[in-house]
Amino acid sequence: MKPAAITMGCPVGVGPEIILGLFDSLTTDEATIAPVVLGDLGVLHHTAKLLHSKVKPVSWQIGQAIKPGTVPVLELSRLATDALHWGQPTKETSLAMAEYIRQATQGTLAGDFAAVVTCPISKKALNEAGIHYPGHTEMLADLTGARRYRMMMAGTRLRVVLVTIHEPLAKVSGMLSAEGILDCIRMTADSLHRDFALDRPRIAVAGFNPHSGEQGMFGREEIEIIEPALRQYEGDALITGPWPPDTVFHKAANGEFDAVVCMYHDQGLIPFKLLHFKDGVNVTLGLPIVRTSVDHGTAYDIAGKGIADTASLRSAWQLATAIATNRARK
Amino acid sequence: MKPAAITMGCPVGVGPEIILGLFDSLTTDEATIAPVVLGDLGVLHHTAKLLHSKVKPVSWQIGQAIKPGTVPVLELSRLATDALHWGQPTKETSLAMAEYIRQATQGTLAGDFAAVVTCPISKKALNEAGIHYPGHTEMLADLTGARRYRMMMAGTRLRVVLVTIHEPLAKVSGMLSAEGILDCIRMTADSLHRDFALDRPRIAVAGFNPHSGEQGMFGREEIEIIEPALRQYEGDALITGPWPPDTVFHKAANGEFDAVVCMYHDQGLIPFKLLHFKDGVNVTLGLPIVRTSVDHGTAYDIAGKGIADTASLRSAWQLATAIATNRARK
Repeated sequence: MKPAAITMGCPVGVGPEIILGLFDSLTTDEATIAPVVLGDLGVLHHTAKLLHSKVKPVSWQIGQAIKPGTVPVLELSRLATDALHWGQPTKETSLAMAEYIRQATQGTLAGDFAAVVTCPISKKALNEAGIHYPGHTEMLADLTGARRYRMMMAGTRLRVVLVTIHEPLAKVSGMLSAEGILDCIRMTADSLHRDFALDRPRIAVAGFNPHSGEQGMFGREEIEIIEPALRQYEGDALITGPWPPDTVFHKAANGEFDAVVCMYHDQGLIPFKLLHFKDGVNVTLGLPIVRTSVDHGTAYDIAGKGIADTASLRSAWQLATAIATNRARK
Repeated sequence: MKPAAITMGCPVGVGPEIILGLFDSLTTDEATIAPVVLGDLGVLHHTAKLLHSKVKPVSWQIGQAIKPGTVPVLELSRLATDALHWGQPTKETSLAMAEYIRQATQGTLAGDFAAVVTCPISKKALNEAGIHYPGHTEMLADLTGARRYRMMMAGTRLRVVLVTIHEPLAKVSGMLSAEGILDCIRMTADSLHRDFALDRPRIAVAGFNPHSGEQGMFGREEIEIIEPALRQYEGDALITGPWPPDTVFHKAANGEFDAVVCMYHDQGLIPFKLLHFKDGVNVTLGLPIVRTSVDHGTAYDIAGKGIADTASLRSAWQLATAIATNRARK
């Protein structure tokens, strides 16, 4: 199969070093879908030298063979490394970072890559460079023309999908709708079928209020919005809920469900990060391409020190290859 | 020291069997503070026979010595066991259940008991019997004359204290105040000092919004309410925050904090139940007596079957004895 495109993310964040860490840990037999980097060869050279990396970044072109022990880099920027400082993004680094994403997306749409795996970007730096997106996912959605998309966080013990994401918590109740929840349930079911090869996925839908509202005593979103959404679902996944939020994640982590549909950011992210602090993967549902991402930020405070953990990138790459393989089988 | 009073809870719930389970697991050396039961001898006899319990319930009076291998029962009701059905509370069972709580509270206030440990009650049954409290804790607060109290959930890996409890989530933002949060921080610090014998407790205060609002982008409760509360604290505990809710529990569970002050029910209960599904303990802060409770309900669906887990009651009794011992040392 075609290689998976790993975008380097912010050149002065932890992206370069976690990429080197990933390649360093690769064993020859596992790369059924080889990773290639869309980034900056000079920055990777500089980082490799600084951190005494065992793998060697080399220039690479689409279609070219990949040499074991190298880090194949599709060169999309040539930043002057002596002008770069870890943790201090510039307009140049931010424009380069956006270009890696654009080329990865277009290349994957064109069939040159099997999947996109993204390293962290700084939303603030992106916007300061004049590229206005609320975040990474919104940029990918725009570039692929996807109008409906959702964020799934996936780990070995728990998968959560968010109905609402970066919203003030006080506004979430007003943003919930049966249509929106139903849409999220359907996209979750489709992904579990197609991406995770589960025949009859079991999806738990979390309530919104404590004890799922306790028959309306502590809120009515369950009765008025969530239950109607559940009743409207007509697919063949096994959908249950609304479950009391404080026990559903324990059940899911113990194998009772394949995913939990969550009403707000922290409802899903609190349990997810507790179980998968280092090895969580962000998967974007609803795109015409396979996209996974590390679930951490640029970590400017530790960039260039060689202490950033590669686990999330490694999991993101492994999951992207699994999803691409499952989709190819269908 | 005086014994700890264990209230039997709802006579047709899992209370009787978890009490037998607790006594069955007691080793003679651990009972520095002996448990005694405030409940119904007939019901415990009946349960012991049904479940082939090794321990023997016996009638007991305040001040009397406790025989090893027995379950000492202060008889506060004499329910007709042949008229009782597991999972089906009656007015008589509910009035009896309330009486256990009353006598335990009064006896502890009077110095007859070192602590109160409560088995689960049914709020619905309590209210149907004409005793109107929103819950167990509110009843204890009323009986002890406490005007300010908070719920802490305590486990070996995590302690959480809730600023708001059983409220519709959409209303929580409007209920938060710097005074309320500060009060909760102070009560948490006091309890960690006095009950848990921690000299300089480290308390994390969670934010309310995703990413703690990200400088106001996703909500302003952190800036307008939580940060002012933190600034007003003048005690000697180490208070930090507002922390992003999705990472603070991971830090706390890994030993960085002694407790997390949470803004709403599920913020604290989701991570707590994920880590302490079976052995969590509910501790009431702010009462003039020591009170712990199991963190599960009456479990009417499995009552009388002998499958209810004793772990939470065991943890609740152990924690009550630890707190009573720590308080006595001061």
